[in-house]
Amino acid sequence: MTVSVDGYVAGPADGVDAPMGAGGFRLFNWLDRRHEPGPDNQVYTEMLATRAVISGRRTYEHAGRWHGDHHDGVPVFVLTHDVPDDPPPGAVRYVTDVRGCAAQARAAAGDADVMVHGAGAAQALLRAGELDELELHLVPVLLGQGRRLFEHLPAEHVELELVRRLMSAPEVPDPAQQVTHLRYRVR
Amino acid sequence: MTVSVDGYVAGPADGVDAPMGAGGFRLFNWLDRRHEPGPDNQVYTEMLATRAVISGRRTYEHAGRWHGDHHDGVPVFVLTHDVPDDPPPGAVRYVTDVRGCAAQARAAAGDADVMVHGAGAAQALLRAGELDELELHLVPVLLGQGRRLFEHLPAEHVELELVRRLMSAPEVPDPAQQVTHLRYRVR
Repeated sequence: MTVSVDGYVAGPADGVDAPMGAGGFRLFNWLDRRHEPGPDNQVYTEMLATRAVISGRRTYEHAGRWHGDHHDGVPVFVLTHDVPDDPPPGAVRYVTDVRGCAAQARAAAGDADVMVHGAGAAQALLRAGELDELELHLVPVLLGQGRRLFEHLPAEHVELELVRRLMSAPEVPDPAQQVTHLRYRVR
Repeated sequence: MTVSVDGYVAGPADGVDAPMGAGGFRLFNWLDRRHEPGPDNQVYTEMLATRAVISGRRTYEHAGRWHGDHHDGVPVFVLTHDVPDDPPPGAVRYVTDVRGCAAQARAAAGDADVMVHGAGAAQALLRAGELDELELHLVPVLLGQGRRLFEHLPAEHVELELVRRLMSAPEVPDPAQQVTHLRYRVR
């Protein structure tokens, strides 16, 4: 998940017509460099090497349902409270049970990693103890308001361990494209 | 400011009797190593080299008013909406105007830095455009709930630049003592 220093994954008033909220696309400037050799490309390549995706319903809808294919046709498990009446597009499956969702995604990915998309899905998996790692792309900006990555969690400590840290600066001349990739393992 | 990965500077239900809230002292484990040579000592030494302190009223009260001396008798400017009736202890002065507070603290510190204490003070200075840098001691834990460092800010982008990054891991064998020091300049 790409997140601002003040913890937002989207600006305010996000919706289908403004998937990243007001000003939220600022968070994705670092992806401009995803094809340049270096840490950003490494991280982006890892994303595309995942063999299953778990997404929250909200993120999925805001992203136009990815037209049924997030990348390479890997299965996309969409966590939702209410299964839509219309059949899911492409590689999408709707799942209402968090642990079942995690189990299905792990099975589908095999030896590869599962990507998790959206704050809601991340929170649900954290609450269920099903999140193994957090890869945060920390962008040097304060959005001030918006949708937070971390909320709706119980007042229980989740101990982490920093297992990898990559950053593109100072090689990146434009500060707006800088990002720090922090990977934490859930202990 | 020491902050959890999910953005909290104290656990829930902080108050005079529980200055860091429930479980919030977890955030300060890294300070156990403040006298060991290394990044943690470097950062701690820098704190003590500041020649003025700005604190929010809440932090100041929760910290027992530092008995009037935060460190070395440097002036402590306490931002408050209501000036208490009793005279401030020691080196403390009460200030109600944010910009005036910043100006007084800068003047008192001379060529040295001013330390800012507390989420409320940081937010007030950010809103007033008076914060030059953020030094975040990012602790690898999710607290789940508590007092956030970043809130009550307008939906306006504050662009940052990462100007320094220090971390003690992997030299620190105990993950609970690990911390990443991220210094951002406000652009």
